[in-house]
Amino acid sequence: MERIKPRTLSGFMELLPDRQAQMERIMETLRKTYMLYGFAPLDTPIIEASEVLLAKGGGETEKQIYRFEKGDTDLSLRFDLTVPLAKYVALNYGQLAFPFRRYQIGKVYRGERAQRGRFREFYQADIDVIGDGELGILNEAEIPAIIYRTFTQLGLRKFKIRVNNRKVLNGFFAFLGLSDKAADIMRTIDKIDKIGADKCRALLLDDGVSADKADEILRFISISGTSAEKLQALKAYEGKNEIFDLGLKELSAVAGCLPEFGVPAENFEIDLTIARGLDYYTGTVYETTLTEHPEIGSVCSGGRYDNLAEYYTDKKLPGVGISIGLTRLFFVLEEQGMLSDELITAPADVLILPMTSDISKAVETATLLREAGIRTMLYGEDKKFKAKMSYADKIGVPFVVFHGDDEISQGVVKVKDMKTGEQFTEQAETAAQRIKTAIDVRGTGRVIKD
Amino acid sequence: MERIKPRTLSGFMELLPDRQAQMERIMETLRKTYMLYGFAPLDTPIIEASEVLLAKGGGETEKQIYRFEKGDTDLSLRFDLTVPLAKYVALNYGQLAFPFRRYQIGKVYRGERAQRGRFREFYQADIDVIGDGELGILNEAEIPAIIYRTFTQLGLRKFKIRVNNRKVLNGFFAFLGLSDKAADIMRTIDKIDKIGADKCRALLLDDGVSADKADEILRFISISGTSAEKLQALKAYEGKNEIFDLGLKELSAVAGCLPEFGVPAENFEIDLTIARGLDYYTGTVYETTLTEHPEIGSVCSGGRYDNLAEYYTDKKLPGVGISIGLTRLFFVLEEQGMLSDELITAPADVLILPMTSDISKAVETATLLREAGIRTMLYGEDKKFKAKMSYADKIGVPFVVFHGDDEISQGVVKVKDMKTGEQFTEQAETAAQRIKTAIDVRGTGRVIKD
Repeated sequence: MERIKPRTLSGFMELLPDRQAQMERIMETLRKTYMLYGFAPLDTPIIEASEVLLAKGGGETEKQIYRFEKGDTDLSLRFDLTVPLAKYVALNYGQLAFPFRRYQIGKVYRGERAQRGRFREFYQADIDVIGDGELGILNEAEIPAIIYRTFTQLGLRKFKIRVNNRKVLNGFFAFLGLSDKAADIMRTIDKIDKIGADKCRALLLDDGVSADKADEILRFISISGTSAEKLQALKAYEGKNEIFDLGLKELSAVAGCLPEFGVPAENFEIDLTIARGLDYYTGTVYETTLTEHPEIGSVCSGGRYDNLAEYYTDKKLPGVGISIGLTRLFFVLEEQGMLSDELITAPADVLILPMTSDISKAVETATLLREAGIRTMLYGEDKKFKAKMSYADKIGVPFVVFHGDDEISQGVVKVKDMKTGEQFTEQAETAAQRIKTAIDVRGTGRVIKD
Repeated sequence: MERIKPRTLSGFMELLPDRQAQMERIMETLRKTYMLYGFAPLDTPIIEASEVLLAKGGGETEKQIYRFEKGDTDLSLRFDLTVPLAKYVALNYGQLAFPFRRYQIGKVYRGERAQRGRFREFYQADIDVIGDGELGILNEAEIPAIIYRTFTQLGLRKFKIRVNNRKVLNGFFAFLGLSDKAADIMRTIDKIDKIGADKCRALLLDDGVSADKADEILRFISISGTSAEKLQALKAYEGKNEIFDLGLKELSAVAGCLPEFGVPAENFEIDLTIARGLDYYTGTVYETTLTEHPEIGSVCSGGRYDNLAEYYTDKKLPGVGISIGLTRLFFVLEEQGMLSDELITAPADVLILPMTSDISKAVETATLLREAGIRTMLYGEDKKFKAKMSYADKIGVPFVVFHGDDEISQGVVKVKDMKTGEQFTEQAETAAQRIKTAIDVRGTGRVIKD
């Protein structure tokens, strides 16, 4: 038979079982955390009509999109989870309760140039709160709490949630008389972390900003201190522009709720340089950086927008949302050696090795362990003892249960803890309890070490 | 602005939040059950190189496939989870431990003619055990236990796992001298449930089977009684053909372990008419039918095969697997009114309604409830009381927590059980305990009523 060489396309992540177990753990943690904040799961098709998906049109997106015809239909693969959400909310407007809070963890597709760490198929994990006509600031204030719990539950500790408000920036530019240049200026100052103040100033001059005003802008975004000190310093600009004043009020509300939301001060920072490149953010904007890995950039970003679905409906649907690029994050964590080996990544907690030809007792024990919630693999191959133990080692199973004639006649099982090497012989019920306790303890570990 | 009419393509399932919650519950139940039997999660790309995906080539598959070019690459969307598994095992052969047990729940794509209840994008939920060169019969014997636990955990009770063995059929056809017609005959007898014995006999004659032998075949597949009685009746055919004898031994082994695996006799049946259309099954074959909905057909099918990855590797990789067509199953369950309304489908267990302008105490309570593992939604909109309660009704939240001046000054919260209408006022910690107990009880419910 002619054989085809098996391969997986470049830019597509496909993990070995132990890594996949860690990825699943991350996704489960995200699901649980998002649900804790009242977000409903949503699942939309990966394929949409191109005219729907590209309603906004233009730009990089359209070049990267996977687009094709099937029959007479012009189809595209989704390139993010925001456009499908907009479509969903516009389509089901009458049947949804607002504010509508949804999370979605799903694959999206972008035909980017293939390079290491860049993916063409990747998971995004998004949450959004969508209001009908209006949406209270409390929703924006809650986002840092969600980011904080998400990352701490994953095991990260050294991270900072950086927050700004687009109204603060827009209002400030307005009273400098630079409203028409606001978008350019924001794109420029967004880069200051990477390019430095001098280069940033030069770019501002290129944008057509006068030297005086460029200095004023740099002074403004350099305001330093604690969140309280920064808010205090911003008060000096109050009373000159309504948008600015509203933005400052919102920023104060977001920073003000942190203790009640359980977010420690050291994981939060008001950062006036954050603008987010996208034009549609209109209020609070968020970025999250790993303190010891600033080179990775933001691992969780988003913000407040005023019109989710303007391309589909005349209903005004403001919202706030954040997104984690999960596949890239996983890639980076693996590369940095930050995935914990403490967690059980084996497909089972127990491997049962029947040592007799009558395997009925071994099956009974398997059923008993499974009833106790223990993931149990029953080894059914006719191999030598050494090969069986080698299999146990290879899958990294925490416990092996031996079922020989002696054990069967005595009504017990022999258990080996593969980590410590310790062995014990007990009745199956008692053994199940000891095993369950041990794996529950190991199960409380975090998937990321930081 | 010109607006695009939002729509979802026909043949693509997109659920409203309460239905999605039920779908998620089903998927979670499948994941948990599969893991209990030692299956590792696997996630493969939705897009593969066409030459890889179509290595086997031909047939209906190729007509239905979503195939397109991106750059110079000929790409296709996966149409099942078996071919990607074969590719994965062949590609990672050296790094996997065998038997390799994996589950995968993922979307697959088939451009079928659009009709009600037919989907072009649908979830399959597959498990497979792959051996290296050989694979013990215990793996085949375990499958009914997995099917049984899966469906009972979902809430189904009235179902039957129907099992046959291809070697029994092939061996029987061999000593009738009909080996060259075996594939045709199996396809014919596979339909007997739908078309009846007379029509089945006529088709067998069309297949070129003599009248005598057609009667013999019909007598054989009509063997009735309990599993034990059927096995006993089959012994009459023993000693005439080696393949038959081996098949009968395997069938006896599969039926023999059921009590130890915890599968009640009434949920299991040896059914000699089951052949499964696919040519590659070589041992035990499985179908699962809902006793009171035979018209749905099999909701979980599969079998034993000898060569998973012959198109990619010269390694012999026998396996056994089953698949659930999840999207279609969900559609049918919904249509039959079998999805339980007893489960909480709301996005939160508690909705907190702050009744004062200072929301800090409400936020504190939200944090406390979330720490207790209670899914809590914080209502941040400036609405009248009636609108707030209407929102609570609309999302179907089980508990509402009121935070007014009185409660704040007394250091308590007022809780309303939305199902019973009962209200109680307690300290937040005590209220959290009462709520947690109540939702845990409701959480033990099953997603399907049967």
